[in-house]
Amino acid sequence: MRSAISIFMRFAVLVLVGLVMVSAVGAADRDKLLSEPGVYGTFAAFSLDADWAKQDQTVRIAQLTLLKGVVEQHREKLAIDIYLLRGLSDHADVLFRIHATELRETQQFLLDLQGSLFGKHLKTAGVMHGLTKKANYVPGFPDQLKAELKISSEPGPKPYAIVIPIRKSADWWGLDQDKRAAMMQEHTEATVPYLKTVKRKLYHSSGLDDLDFITYFETSKLEDFHSLVLALEKVKEFQYNRRFGHPTLLGTVRSLDEIIEVLAQ
Amino acid sequence: MRSAISIFMRFAVLVLVGLVMVSAVGAADRDKLLSEPGVYGTFAAFSLDADWAKQDQTVRIAQLTLLKGVVEQHREKLAIDIYLLRGLSDHADVLFRIHATELRETQQFLLDLQGSLFGKHLKTAGVMHGLTKKANYVPGFPDQLKAELKISSEPGPKPYAIVIPIRKSADWWGLDQDKRAAMMQEHTEATVPYLKTVKRKLYHSSGLDDLDFITYFETSKLEDFHSLVLALEKVKEFQYNRRFGHPTLLGTVRSLDEIIEVLAQ
Amino acid sequence: MRSAISIFMRFAVLVLVGLVMVSAVGAADRDKLLSEPGVYGTFAAFSLDADWAKQDQTVRIAQLTLLKGVVEQHREKLAIDIYLLRGLSDHADVLFRIHATELRETQQFLLDLQGSLFGKHLKTAGVMHGLTKKANYVPGFPDQLKAELKISSEPGPKPYAIVIPIRKSADWWGLDQDKRAAMMQEHTEATVPYLKTVKRKLYHSSGLDDLDFITYFETSKLEDFHSLVLALEKVKEFQYNRRFGHPTLLGTVRSLDEIIEVLAQ
Amino acid sequence: MRSAISIFMRFAVLVLVGLVMVSAVGAADRDKLLSEPGVYGTFAAFSLDADWAKQDQTVRIAQLTLLKGVVEQHREKLAIDIYLLRGLSDHADVLFRIHATELRETQQFLLDLQGSLFGKHLKTAGVMHGLTKKANYVPGFPDQLKAELKISSEPGPKPYAIVIPIRKSADWWGLDQDKRAAMMQEHTEATVPYLKTVKRKLYHSSGLDDLDFITYFETSKLEDFHSLVLALEKVKEFQYNRRFGHPTLLGTVRSLDEIIEVLAQ
Amino acid sequence: MRSAISIFMRFAVLVLVGLVMVSAVGAADRDKLLSEPGVYGTFAAFSLDADWAKQDQTVRIAQLTLLKGVVEQHREKLAIDIYLLRGLSDHADVLFRIHATELRETQQFLLDLQGSLFGKHLKTAGVMHGLTKKANYVPGFPDQLKAELKISSEPGPKPYAIVIPIRKSADWWGLDQDKRAAMMQEHTEATVPYLKTVKRKLYHSSGLDDLDFITYFETSKLEDFHSLVLALEKVKEFQYNRRFGHPTLLGTVRSLDEIIEVLAQ
Repeated sequence: MRSAISIFMRFAVLVLVGLVMVSAVGAADRDKLLSEPGVYGTFAAFSLDADWAKQDQTVRIAQLTLLKGVVEQHREKLAIDIYLLRGLSDHADVLFRIHATELRETQQFLLDLQGSLFGKHLKTAGVMHGLTKKANYVPGFPDQLKAELKISSEPGPKPYAIVIPIRKSADWWGLDQDKRAAMMQEHTEATVPYLKTVKRKLYHSSGLDDLDFITYFETSKLEDFHSLVLALEKVKEFQYNRRFGHPTLLGTVRSLDEIIEVLAQ
Repeated sequence: MRSAISIFMRFAVLVLVGLVMVSAVGAADRDKLLSEPGVYGTFAAFSLDADWAKQDQTVRIAQLTLLKGVVEQHREKLAIDIYLLRGLSDHADVLFRIHATELRETQQFLLDLQGSLFGKHLKTAGVMHGLTKKANYVPGFPDQLKAELKISSEPGPKPYAIVIPIRKSADWWGLDQDKRAAMMQEHTEATVPYLKTVKRKLYHSSGLDDLDFITYFETSKLEDFHSLVLALEKVKEFQYNRRFGHPTLLGTVRSLDEIIEVLAQ
Repeated sequence: MRSAISIFMRFAVLVLVGLVMVSAVGAADRDKLLSEPGVYGTFAAFSLDADWAKQDQTVRIAQLTLLKGVVEQHREKLAIDIYLLRGLSDHADVLFRIHATELRETQQFLLDLQGSLFGKHLKTAGVMHGLTKKANYVPGFPDQLKAELKISSEPGPKPYAIVIPIRKSADWWGLDQDKRAAMMQEHTEATVPYLKTVKRKLYHSSGLDDLDFITYFETSKLEDFHSLVLALEKVKEFQYNRRFGHPTLLGTVRSLDEIIEVLAQ
Repeated sequence: MRSAISIFMRFAVLVLVGLVMVSAVGAADRDKLLSEPGVYGTFAAFSLDADWAKQDQTVRIAQLTLLKGVVEQHREKLAIDIYLLRGLSDHADVLFRIHATELRETQQFLLDLQGSLFGKHLKTAGVMHGLTKKANYVPGFPDQLKAELKISSEPGPKPYAIVIPIRKSADWWGLDQDKRAAMMQEHTEATVPYLKTVKRKLYHSSGLDDLDFITYFETSKLEDFHSLVLALEKVKEFQYNRRFGHPTLLGTVRSLDEIIEVLAQ
Repeated sequence: MRSAISIFMRFAVLVLVGLVMVSAVGAADRDKLLSEPGVYGTFAAFSLDADWAKQDQTVRIAQLTLLKGVVEQHREKLAIDIYLLRGLSDHADVLFRIHATELRETQQFLLDLQGSLFGKHLKTAGVMHGLTKKANYVPGFPDQLKAELKISSEPGPKPYAIVIPIRKSADWWGLDQDKRAAMMQEHTEATVPYLKTVKRKLYHSSGLDDLDFITYFETSKLEDFHSLVLALEKVKEFQYNRRFGHPTLLGTVRSLDEIIEVLAQ
């Protein structure tokens, strides 16, 4: 029964939302934004207010059409990914990950989003920023480890995404570069068995918010991800985390159309 | 007087709610989900909003009928248990414990629940996830202790359920496996006197939320449960808990029909 | 002027509320519940919502009549005491202390309370549970101290009540019974000068909520109570408190009729 | 332009509010309450709800008239001071400091305040209680210091008031009286340069709330007050504060009529 | 498409808002307020309530006109800067930085702001105060470092502003002046590479709120700012921070007209 409704909904929503004039979806730079250093990554989590669900479905679909318009318009300059947190995290309903070369561009997107009729139902649950940088410690690692790190993750969809914010203790930053490097090597070795099934991306945050790092993970095997975190908790470097998670954001990777379909229901 | 109203209510609610077409309550896999390793357990606690109680009783009963529909529909794939926290915990009114082989299935259930007319009155109070795993330290325990652990809990209803989330300190994970095993043996020995009256289940959480473990208890003798926790506070391993509870969730095990009856009042 | 209104109000409220049919106020067991070990004590604090005060006074009086009905009905099985926190504590407006042999009975009372038209205006501010037990350390105390502890508190009304929740550190539970006993003797000796003017009752909480103890005090001399707490802060055992208060609940002991009169205004 | 409106407003408000019949403003005991030991001081901070400002000005003035009535009526028994926090503290809009010989009298005032039509717009932001006591350590100070402490503060208005709640560590209370006295002497010596421009009053709180002390300051020179706190942070005794501020309340001393004028706007 | 609307909006808003009679924008003293010691700096952050966005645009523009009036009127005495936090910080939407010689003047501005029709939609997210003072440690620095500190930052717009509140540990204040000076020299040396691209201003807060310092930064190169903070985390003095950020406020510097334009949308 549910799937019948679901198929109809998907059709109705996609037809309506598909009418949006997308000015330019030239996502040419998306690959660069997602792979190069010097890019700002913003994680903006939102809850929907109590009024959202009380609106008529046609009103909601109209407002979601505006969401689609805002996102598509900014895709010229920004790489925007969306995640469904509802049901898996108690902090928010949806998460936007935005990559930009300037945070002003990200701010403009979020202003347009929150200024839209859809956005008026969004309550900000959290905003975190980080910067991608060249690997700090890897150049000094043994060749064997360097080679292992080149293993790329298995192809195929990775439906789960996890965001773990990290704050190091003052003691960590007070250590010599050598000592930190040795501990980061032990840390990195612990991740090797999970390179194939857990994709990982690191953002540097000091000064941009109350964090030092944002770690982002994608996987299809949550059990492997759990084992990875357990392995990381056992290395010496873990003792220098003043904050690890709090909140841990767990959600599923979704296309904009899937998000729209879920929120239209 | 109360019981007369109560009996009438039970009758009225059950008649109305009983009309729900349950597509397939083939709970064949429930036993497997509740006993095997590699299963995800989610604890989702909700409060009812202020509008809920202000609605007409007939409206509330209609909405509770939808709750029943959503739960029954997902029982094909999920093991769903419900607890009444109201009056015993200040964090939430109801708690769902959901076992699934994939967290995506759990997310879909909670999306359907929150998307229903009943669900629009639910405010998420907390969501925690854990994974069932084979016993970590038990294989190394002395035979005498292993034998004692095989004592199963007394049959009969266990009306009280308690959920205690746990976060270990970084020091714990930095210990050798041997030292952790020795402390877990002392911990386990402390639980032996309570095996008959307090049922216990362990979930591993690292990475899935801001916890390392979720411990779940059922008992008909809360005083025994209190004595068990007191005994566990006295063993050395307890010193390695950075968080124990916060919140402790205490409630009563209820059938879906009982929950519906209470919420209809 | 205020007292004239007050006298009229008291009359009007008592007449209206007095019409409630009290099914059975056989409070025969109240003394047992308040003095024996193995009894569960629940402290449930509530705030009134913003809508409460905006209602017409006649509506409020009608709802308070229902409150009286719910309380009287459960007095068959439970010992229920009520405290006015408003003006003295910023956490809540009213506090219920409920003694029961089974927490299920307490839950049923609170469900009925919150389900009543009056209860729909209550927001749960906090719920704590503890268990009364036989004195743990007293049997080992010197005879002189044992004799002093038999001094009962002065008769006469004790208008102030204070509730202080306590969580001990892991170090405390890791100490030998002997060391804990010696410190508890020092602690107890510090209380002797205040036995006459400050009444005290202890509840054991480990596992039932995020506390180890709930300490309850009644006094007519708050200055003596302050001196008692100051004396307790100076003994060695105090260093093993991880939490002491947070919140400290301070209120006045009130009869149900007095509470009703205050809330009707 | 603003001052023209302001003058008119002041006139209109004072005329209307001046019509309140003040039963007895015999503030004979105010001096005693503000200077003697054994008096309870309560700091009750309130925010105005969102509805307050949305009301018509005439409605607001009528409600403020009731505020004046409640305050004047209780001035027979209580010393009531009012402070405007809005704009300077993010915790609340107004602060009442109430001195009484019994906290029950203070509770009755706050019940009447919150029960008035004006009070229905007040949200409690925090309530703290303390007791005035004879100086604890001063009798043992050297004569030179004792003489310096007799310097009274300069006459003239002191428009700024600051309230800093303090909680000492368990280590502090575990120290010998001698060691505490030596540190308090160092603490007191640090305050001498500011005795003329910063007025200070101490309240003892242990057991009455989650504090050990409430320190209250008045000054016309905030820069001197800042220097005083900086000096106090540098003495050894400061290391024994577990909490200092959190919140620090900063506001301006206002007459009841000034508060009414501001809130009427 | 967006820019067309944007240009029209800018025109419409500026015409309407431009009609405000500005009594005296003699910002003669602005330079003094921003450069001299003995000036109070207040950081007041606000969120807009849910009703704001639901109003008609013409209503919002009328209210923003009032905002402009209030700001302009107080610019006689105060230096007022405005920042757009929305999209970059999750704590608030707008931030006012106000410099004054007396905090009473700042309070009057914020009272007038919150009392205006626009201000009724503002929810206070946080208020922090600090005092500008002559450099504490610089006079004792080596001449070479003193010379380097005279480098002024590059001209041109610095669109990003960051506010980091700081609380030192009790240990910091317990150190000798010499030891603190040595550590502050190391701290200052770490900032030299960033003097050109990151502008910095320090406020002293002890006693005025729950902070010791407020550090304010402006930059056009956020990556440089990130590197600066990273460098500061590595010096010894950083170990004496009990709080650094929490919250870190990140926003963009905006003129009053730009803020009005954004909020009008």
